[in-house]
Amino acid sequence: MRENRLRTLWRNDQAAINGWLAIPNSFAAETMAHQGWDTLTIDLQHGVVDYQAMVTMLQAISTTPTVPIVRVPWLEPGIIMKTLDAGAYGVICPMVNTREDAQKFVAYTHYAPKGTRSFGPVRALLYGGADYPQHANDTIVRFAMIETAQALDNLDSILSVEGLDAVYIGPSDLSLSLGCRPVFDDVDAPVAQAIEHILERATAHGLKAGVHNGRTDVALARVAKGFRFVTVGSDARLLAAGSQDILKSMRAAPGAALGGGY
Amino acid sequence: MRENRLRTLWRNDQAAINGWLAIPNSFAAETMAHQGWDTLTIDLQHGVVDYQAMVTMLQAISTTPTVPIVRVPWLEPGIIMKTLDAGAYGVICPMVNTREDAQKFVAYTHYAPKGTRSFGPVRALLYGGADYPQHANDTIVRFAMIETAQALDNLDSILSVEGLDAVYIGPSDLSLSLGCRPVFDDVDAPVAQAIEHILERATAHGLKAGVHNGRTDVALARVAKGFRFVTVGSDARLLAAGSQDILKSMRAAPGAALGGGY
Amino acid sequence: MRENRLRTLWRNDQAAINGWLAIPNSFAAETMAHQGWDTLTIDLQHGVVDYQAMVTMLQAISTTPTVPIVRVPWLEPGIIMKTLDAGAYGVICPMVNTREDAQKFVAYTHYAPKGTRSFGPVRALLYGGADYPQHANDTIVRFAMIETAQALDNLDSILSVEGLDAVYIGPSDLSLSLGCRPVFDDVDAPVAQAIEHILERATAHGLKAGVHNGRTDVALARVAKGFRFVTVGSDARLLAAGSQDILKSMRAAPGAALGGGY
Amino acid sequence: MRENRLRTLWRNDQAAINGWLAIPNSFAAETMAHQGWDTLTIDLQHGVVDYQAMVTMLQAISTTPTVPIVRVPWLEPGIIMKTLDAGAYGVICPMVNTREDAQKFVAYTHYAPKGTRSFGPVRALLYGGADYPQHANDTIVRFAMIETAQALDNLDSILSVEGLDAVYIGPSDLSLSLGCRPVFDDVDAPVAQAIEHILERATAHGLKAGVHNGRTDVALARVAKGFRFVTVGSDARLLAAGSQDILKSMRAAPGAALGGGY
Amino acid sequence: MRENRLRTLWRNDQAAINGWLAIPNSFAAETMAHQGWDTLTIDLQHGVVDYQAMVTMLQAISTTPTVPIVRVPWLEPGIIMKTLDAGAYGVICPMVNTREDAQKFVAYTHYAPKGTRSFGPVRALLYGGADYPQHANDTIVRFAMIETAQALDNLDSILSVEGLDAVYIGPSDLSLSLGCRPVFDDVDAPVAQAIEHILERATAHGLKAGVHNGRTDVALARVAKGFRFVTVGSDARLLAAGSQDILKSMRAAPGAALGGGY
Amino acid sequence: MRENRLRTLWRNDQAAINGWLAIPNSFAAETMAHQGWDTLTIDLQHGVVDYQAMVTMLQAISTTPTVPIVRVPWLEPGIIMKTLDAGAYGVICPMVNTREDAQKFVAYTHYAPKGTRSFGPVRALLYGGADYPQHANDTIVRFAMIETAQALDNLDSILSVEGLDAVYIGPSDLSLSLGCRPVFDDVDAPVAQAIEHILERATAHGLKAGVHNGRTDVALARVAKGFRFVTVGSDARLLAAGSQDILKSMRAAPGAALGGGY
Repeated sequence: MRENRLRTLWRNDQAAINGWLAIPNSFAAETMAHQGWDTLTIDLQHGVVDYQAMVTMLQAISTTPTVPIVRVPWLEPGIIMKTLDAGAYGVICPMVNTREDAQKFVAYTHYAPKGTRSFGPVRALLYGGADYPQHANDTIVRFAMIETAQALDNLDSILSVEGLDAVYIGPSDLSLSLGCRPVFDDVDAPVAQAIEHILERATAHGLKAGVHNGRTDVALARVAKGFRFVTVGSDARLLAAGSQDILKSMRAAPGAALGGGY
Repeated sequence: MRENRLRTLWRNDQAAINGWLAIPNSFAAETMAHQGWDTLTIDLQHGVVDYQAMVTMLQAISTTPTVPIVRVPWLEPGIIMKTLDAGAYGVICPMVNTREDAQKFVAYTHYAPKGTRSFGPVRALLYGGADYPQHANDTIVRFAMIETAQALDNLDSILSVEGLDAVYIGPSDLSLSLGCRPVFDDVDAPVAQAIEHILERATAHGLKAGVHNGRTDVALARVAKGFRFVTVGSDARLLAAGSQDILKSMRAAPGAALGGGY
Repeated sequence: MRENRLRTLWRNDQAAINGWLAIPNSFAAETMAHQGWDTLTIDLQHGVVDYQAMVTMLQAISTTPTVPIVRVPWLEPGIIMKTLDAGAYGVICPMVNTREDAQKFVAYTHYAPKGTRSFGPVRALLYGGADYPQHANDTIVRFAMIETAQALDNLDSILSVEGLDAVYIGPSDLSLSLGCRPVFDDVDAPVAQAIEHILERATAHGLKAGVHNGRTDVALARVAKGFRFVTVGSDARLLAAGSQDILKSMRAAPGAALGGGY
Repeated sequence: MRENRLRTLWRNDQAAINGWLAIPNSFAAETMAHQGWDTLTIDLQHGVVDYQAMVTMLQAISTTPTVPIVRVPWLEPGIIMKTLDAGAYGVICPMVNTREDAQKFVAYTHYAPKGTRSFGPVRALLYGGADYPQHANDTIVRFAMIETAQALDNLDSILSVEGLDAVYIGPSDLSLSLGCRPVFDDVDAPVAQAIEHILERATAHGLKAGVHNGRTDVALARVAKGFRFVTVGSDARLLAAGSQDILKSMRAAPGAALGGGY
Repeated sequence: MRENRLRTLWRNDQAAINGWLAIPNSFAAETMAHQGWDTLTIDLQHGVVDYQAMVTMLQAISTTPTVPIVRVPWLEPGIIMKTLDAGAYGVICPMVNTREDAQKFVAYTHYAPKGTRSFGPVRALLYGGADYPQHANDTIVRFAMIETAQALDNLDSILSVEGLDAVYIGPSDLSLSLGCRPVFDDVDAPVAQAIEHILERATAHGLKAGVHNGRTDVALARVAKGFRFVTVGSDARLLAAGSQDILKSMRAAPGAALGGGY
Repeated sequence: MRENRLRTLWRNDQAAINGWLAIPNSFAAETMAHQGWDTLTIDLQHGVVDYQAMVTMLQAISTTPTVPIVRVPWLEPGIIMKTLDAGAYGVICPMVNTREDAQKFVAYTHYAPKGTRSFGPVRALLYGGADYPQHANDTIVRFAMIETAQALDNLDSILSVEGLDAVYIGPSDLSLSLGCRPVFDDVDAPVAQAIEHILERATAHGLKAGVHNGRTDVALARVAKGFRFVTVGSDARLLAAGSQDILKSMRAAPGAALGGGY
């Protein structure tokens, strides 16, 4: 089975730099994949993407060594299994708030006897190779999102579920749940403490920790603290931020024969 | 009929800042349109976009005041007329190399008696309004691309074709045609001279001039010289450049626990 | 945040005239939106529409002042939250049969602390504006469908769930559940009584009531009774009914040289 | 090969009632096809439809006895032949203005030795049957659009091209070309005369004549005059007209608690 | 309502030969449907297909007498009901492991009073006919997949749920669940015994039994034993196996001027 | 720039085994590409494929070492250049009947000064590499189809056009043009002679020859004669032939409890 380079990075105690895909298009995904991201996550939850668009994006990523990961919309078995059959090498599941949630997630993503994943890796065989059925359980990476006060309360009971590989922190949702402002980087103090706590407990349980960032300096600081999977921005944010950079620098030029925009 | 804000800018002797769309997706287009570009050009020629994707992109742009423009793949009547019927307020036609080319282009984009455009503005009526048929000829903007040595030879005979509104310069193709390197900004001397010459002749004929740029400083310099329609970059370049900025700044951080990429 | 014109109508004690979209296409949706419907509901339940088509339809509606509403396929958190992130300003949830159903629905559609909606309004920010996160809870409208005998039994316990804005009645399903013929307009007596009862109780709880109609006279009569959201027909029915009008009037013409159809 | 029911109607000297498809969607097309139109024309010229959407619409029509016809965007061999390979049983070609245009059109739509159509009827074999190659030349119907002053000047030389089956009149374009208002039904006098003239000459040459109408009374009157293929309206017009009927009758109701629309 | 030819075969005690569709494309589906399969199953679970692609595939199948069946991704009411509304005449539900699972499945697929299926058969009316609402309950076929050890334990309590029509065996999943190799045909002994047992119990309860096969000889042997619905292969396997046949026979030719492949 | 493995095979005097894609879907294409074809040709002419579907198919092929080739619909510059920009490494142009046709084809597919290809290899840069502009002229392969009596008459003047790399023979069209039956393999004598003649003249001019075949024995025999690019079958034929093999062998089984099909 094709190597999961994310696991290789982790074996070397290195963090993956993860890109984020919210645009439902294979050419955008292919363009992103050719830039050298370690991993790219197709966001089926908050991204404007559903299953069929995801398939073409997975194909586009498969033209490069970038590892394809998918954030599923919810802890629902139908779409989680379809995502794996389509060849995702990692799955991020939102809102894992209880031990039971974590157990379900682990079950849905392992073949029997470890779990209840149904057999039929139609595209995964093309991407992973003919021995995918033998190695999928150990190759795929499962991220549980810890992003609510409830999940914090249940943290150790979640993290001790066998078969979970990593946690992923969404600072926005975590902030909202703790009554703070929904931001990625400059989080309020209670959120900052919660993030440190999650990192510490995940590490203690032998799991990797990942986190969503807006800026590279924040991502680097979090890697330094021990995060081993850091997202920076997204395709849609690159379009918006890049456009604004251009437009601001143009419209700020003194005396240029330009309109004021709208 | 809905105002063409590009013409309004021009009446005020102001340049439009134009964005460029090569990704065939309406959410990417909508994201771009919300950033404040004066105009956005959907590129059916070198962009990864065909007619049906273009329609959804035009709809996405129509949620904002940004003016929708389309570069057609070639001087072919079928697609040019379909583009207008879909509601484009400007058309950029590549490779207008002779007076006959320019005459055809003008004919395809005007209703009789000025031209031979067939009648059926199905979506254009929604976007432009019920009086579109009466005003389309005067509202739509037609750009002829001047991008070959042959076009330079025929420049005045092209520019004097009645009904043409503007020229658009593709520095890459113009460079290739003149035996130079295909770049947008730091063009070789013969290309720089040709660009100045086109601008000067277009202005003399009462036409506006537009040009494709890679950087904002170049675009501003060209506005200062008299260009009134300047493209900077494209959606695909924003994804690539933005990703590389992130990845380079991350991987350049000394001592970070990161892999070297691939 | 962009105003929700449906709430404005309601503040003026006026009913919204709602159109219904079952065709999964953005041009059909745009054509409908340009006719002046107060609201348009994209039907993900019985319409031939899934998420990705819905996004392009929401974009098409966003070119007009018509308020975009979505009926979701079922009380499932994944698709409900995706629908809101895509910019729906109202959600109609089928088969809300118990207080627990209503509580879940309300939770899925409110950010913390009121609910458990996950944060990531990717397209909703474009449509609603940058302050969407602050105002979404109060701007979005939530309709619970009351359409079974079980829901009638639990009516007051459903209607008293805080955060619910309105009910929506599907006369067909309600009829089936009460053992009557599945029709929209000329419902059997038990259904007519149930509809009146729901309207009365919803009003008593301070909620608005909506209902699906086939004909305008029925819709007007229901508005007169107090309904404040009335659907008439659907895009697919307009195609069918309009075609049949043409074909019948043609084939009924005496002596016309026409075939008899098939 | 599957019968072309349009030819059968013509052998019985009966007119076909033709519906018109501008919405690029197979469910809309299937809904239309189930209403009993003799023929349905997918409009690749002014409709919002390209090739790939057309294929799914042809499949949808193929679920019924309605005969599938396509109006191509222009007299271009690539798309004309692709349309036939996809199973169209009739082709309407716009802007046939000269004898040479008509000859090209006839050539593109016949296999050798009659024409130059390339061989590869991939979907047409499924729809038409295994003997499609033997009978396609005689089964497919070719309509040349006569819609300009130039075409009127060349009328007899166009109509005498062997292999042409019918003409189709677009009153809008014909009106524009004659300096009149672009309407379908209540055309100006010069257009009315031109239409009668085309009908008379087509009939004299043994060709059938078709025409685009807005209303059924006009269509019936034209059948009575001898037209044997009459289009009434389109899918997009049914949506618009049907919506306006509902909205007007609702908003016109005295005292109804409705807003005034926008 | 249009006949369900699968039920007709069963009334004659004949087995249906079922094809399997994993490619999300209507032309592939139409090509398959024209070959004479009794039934074709669109696989939304392990196939690379979601709802919107499925609709176009159902339309393609509807151009032939082949009966359209859908395997849904999971026992989830939203997609099950959407599938029926789209015109599926049979539904295969994976992982029916308990009596409660079976009861839910039966409820989701019957209108009241038998079940809780919501009313709105938008495309099903086109395919099935205007009397679809009256006859759908008795016409549609429901297959519960028996594919785990748990389901074997609950077999009789599952099979005795009223309203279930048939079982379908996925030998791969059943094998995995029993600790055996995941294959279709040459199953390990415990799986072979389980398959016979399921067939025997289903027959005893008056249900039909179906099974997935890789080869025709196995399918025939299973028909001889009493299976009345046998799948052989899939569209994707036909592409893979057919390509390999060609490439192997070519590359095996002695002395041919061919490369060795990659 | 990424190697063109087709040219490598040719340098070794080896023939490429070419697969053919008529199904407009990226998963079907990816499945085909993983079987080991040397090259795969996406057929935009007779296949049910247009540009946008082609892009996703090219991406799918790019996940493997198979070389992507496209047959364009016609000798039209717009689509030919779009195809190259999308990353095709070979182009097959139908109906090259005259020296002028060949010259145009060569011009459209070379950058200046050799030709008139417009510059903007948006996706080709991703697939081919950053130095694509420098090497594209020499890396891409151009096939002119010789398939009419007219082309035979002009054979040497076509073959001597500098910049042409190969010819491709469509036996069906060639047969029709010579008044014979349209078949691939067991062609009539005049066609057989023409094929030999084309092979001989192409070889004499230093060009490679390719041909469409239905069976492997014919393809092998043609390789033995000197053809260096042989197509066998197509994806759609694999579906049809494979299905018929299954259905015939099933229905032929004596005494099986099967229906007779339809």
